[in-house]
Amino acid sequence: MDRESKVSMTVIRRLPKYYRYLGELLNKGITRISSQELSKLTGFTASQIRQDLNNFGGFGQQGYGYNVEDLHKELGIILGLDKMYNAVIAGAGNLGQAIANYKGFEDAGVKVLSLFDKNPKMIGLKIRDIEIRDVDLLSQFIKDNDVEIGIITTPKDNAQEVADIYARSGIKGIWNFAPADLIVPDDIVVENVHLNESLFTLSYFLKNHPSFDTES
Amino acid sequence: MDRESKVSMTVIRRLPKYYRYLGELLNKGITRISSQELSKLTGFTASQIRQDLNNFGGFGQQGYGYNVEDLHKELGIILGLDKMYNAVIAGAGNLGQAIANYKGFEDAGVKVLSLFDKNPKMIGLKIRDIEIRDVDLLSQFIKDNDVEIGIITTPKDNAQEVADIYARSGIKGIWNFAPADLIVPDDIVVENVHLNESLFTLSYFLKNHPSFDTES
Repeated sequence: MDRESKVSMTVIRRLPKYYRYLGELLNKGITRISSQELSKLTGFTASQIRQDLNNFGGFGQQGYGYNVEDLHKELGIILGLDKMYNAVIAGAGNLGQAIANYKGFEDAGVKVLSLFDKNPKMIGLKIRDIEIRDVDLLSQFIKDNDVEIGIITTPKDNAQEVADIYARSGIKGIWNFAPADLIVPDDIVVENVHLNESLFTLSYFLKNHPSFDTES
Repeated sequence: MDRESKVSMTVIRRLPKYYRYLGELLNKGITRISSQELSKLTGFTASQIRQDLNNFGGFGQQGYGYNVEDLHKELGIILGLDKMYNAVIAGAGNLGQAIANYKGFEDAGVKVLSLFDKNPKMIGLKIRDIEIRDVDLLSQFIKDNDVEIGIITTPKDNAQEVADIYARSGIKGIWNFAPADLIVPDDIVVENVHLNESLFTLSYFLKNHPSFDTES
């Protein structure tokens, strides 16, 4: 399947939501679910759900619905959560430290090996067991440790410089928290977390007072 | 203008991006920009940009383009960034502490007055000048201090309980970092930051290796 043309971003972004809902159903001991029931849970139409999942395989059976455990496991594989990734964090300020402790990494098979910073007061400190190293050592560390994910929690003016180091050192994917548009080679994935844009959207709706969730 | 039916979420979510780009242009001393130039910067078509901005007023002039400072200022007002909001944070763990220090609050006119937690080891500590108070005091604090924004950085199992306290205490908007779907009255705005979904999306693309930014 030629994924680049067949599966759109909007479909792909629904997958982690399905994964989350199915995880919650699993925790509740629910073994089976229909697309109608999934529709009530997720807010997506039953038809949309079936179409989305059909992009990835023949899940579900007419009259039975979906087996929750199997579908959850399959989605986990599709999302690549079964693979282990080594990661580093550049920018050991409050946000970087918070992300170093982020529980979601375990669920995604991501292991943060080190933080990096240029501030001498931070270098040598430890966040739980994770050391803060001098950013001068970043490139070599990535190569020595087969690091595939580079996280950026620097101020925006340092973000591109870090992205450049990541790009030339073998990083394959960047999780970027800095409010900057990164320029990287085409074969590197960039996922941005736009905290400012999220907060400003909240501010817009507080001012304009609609009666719906900002995701609708 | 009936905003609920006339301006879609996709348009609204582009506004903070325009605001950010215009801010960067301002910092560079650029006073004027055409929709074509904005198109090159943002990746949106010139026609889309003009349509988006036309929803909110008659900005720009044929042959001149847009005045950067005026447009930036107007967008700031539309986004409600000119209004000051008091905020509280429930959940004083790493993420809550990082968010307490988040620089974007100043840009959005948001002032965090207090953190709240139920862990006795946290209660009474200070993050910079911001105190961590007992969550039992949360509701009264919101009322006493005209707090309009409630931030949730608790584990997912505590998020709904916090949302309930927020809802009955007068909070108008919730910035939610917990991976949970909150149930709140219709007149409360909820903006979710889905860190898990973002990370899982990155994982998907690392596995499926397309050659584009996850936002395209």
